[in-house]
Amino acid sequence: MTSPSAKLQALGIALRKPGAPAASYVMAVSTGSTVFLSGHIAKKEGQVWVGKLGENMDTASGKEAARSVAIDLLSTLQDHLGSIDRVKRVVKVMGLVNSTSSYTEQHLVINGCSELINEVFGDAGKHARSAFGVAQIPLGSCVEIEMIVEIE
Amino acid sequence: MTSPSAKLQALGIALRKPGAPAASYVMAVSTGSTVFLSGHIAKKEGQVWVGKLGENMDTASGKEAARSVAIDLLSTLQDHLGSIDRVKRVVKVMGLVNSTSSYTEQHLVINGCSELINEVFGDAGKHARSAFGVAQIPLGSCVEIEMIVEIE
Amino acid sequence: MTSPSAKLQALGIALRKPGAPAASYVMAVSTGSTVFLSGHIAKKEGQVWVGKLGENMDTASGKEAARSVAIDLLSTLQDHLGSIDRVKRVVKVMGLVNSTSSYTEQHLVINGCSELINEVFGDAGKHARSAFGVAQIPLGSCVEIEMIVEIE
Repeated sequence: MTSPSAKLQALGIALRKPGAPAASYVMAVSTGSTVFLSGHIAKKEGQVWVGKLGENMDTASGKEAARSVAIDLLSTLQDHLGSIDRVKRVVKVMGLVNSTSSYTEQHLVINGCSELINEVFGDAGKHARSAFGVAQIPLGSCVEIEMIVEIE
Repeated sequence: MTSPSAKLQALGIALRKPGAPAASYVMAVSTGSTVFLSGHIAKKEGQVWVGKLGENMDTASGKEAARSVAIDLLSTLQDHLGSIDRVKRVVKVMGLVNSTSSYTEQHLVINGCSELINEVFGDAGKHARSAFGVAQIPLGSCVEIEMIVEIE
Repeated sequence: MTSPSAKLQALGIALRKPGAPAASYVMAVSTGSTVFLSGHIAKKEGQVWVGKLGENMDTASGKEAARSVAIDLLSTLQDHLGSIDRVKRVVKVMGLVNSTSSYTEQHLVINGCSELINEVFGDAGKHARSAFGVAQIPLGSCVEIEMIVEIE
């Protein structure tokens, strides 16, 4: 059994210093054995990753952005828990895609997050999920994802 | 006291074989006594039920689609739990309606789901809820609904 | 230590009789030590607070509407729990802003809710949050907010 943190290392992914919230909230809250992570917006090289699917961004780029958000979610988790190896189960992901009113591949975009979660956590990464297209996201970000995890 | 499964039968509703997720996730995850169900998109005769409220679909049809999603949510629950009679309380429903920027009857659409839940579970079906209009839904579906339930 | 209810009083805020749900659901459901509050739409003087950010409503007004929703959420909590002083932690807020496809200040709007929560509950008010722009909200409301809290 490879631990999630060892798996991350094998994938060559370094977690980051979690960003500060853009507003009056915190990035994660624990209640009992459940951790609720705030919606994390996509960033690229420290800047907001701006874009709207169906208008000026394609599915492949959106998927890359969603994968990047997954790394940020794991970074927040590590900061909150000390180690991502304390995760017992990834319970649920809610993935919002900044979409025109006709773009319909939100599920493929959010796979960028889900696939990384599955790779890192294996069976413990199998999560429930909702993905959908929203009119906009704070600061114009292309993707925003929140996550619920269960810890030991 | 009629059980929820007997109530379903009395309503002439047969649960279905749950559909496979459209992407890299699972349809339900349990954590403690809470079950989180993924967002289920509306289907009609096995095909995605495509439509946008305010553009090419009316409230009555949207409500019918939401009722159909409720049956799919119950089908997933039965598959996940063995029996829907293990449900202690339906906790929360989040109902997304594929909407134009001016359509404002999302609450009436999602009643199609809520009313069936109430009929099947009685007092145990009284749930918290959010309903709102989204820019799009994966594959163009008219409605997507996720649910949280508490089990014994 | 000032209690949340004393803090509310010091702020000159009177809680209201909770509104009835607009449809087939209830305003709050408890499961274990967690309370899920339904999406509450913004109201002004008892009427739906209609508006779309980026079109006919500015960020300052949206923020005022979000603060008003926070008061309604607290009113529902008090009705559900007997007293808001039973809240151990505000866990999560999901804030929906009725937005055009180009308006990007949803985080500033929802601060109207978050800041009041923080003021009333202090450290126990530090919550996880998602905020985003939706195509529409039932009855044309400008803001809809749901909340999860942990009780003693």
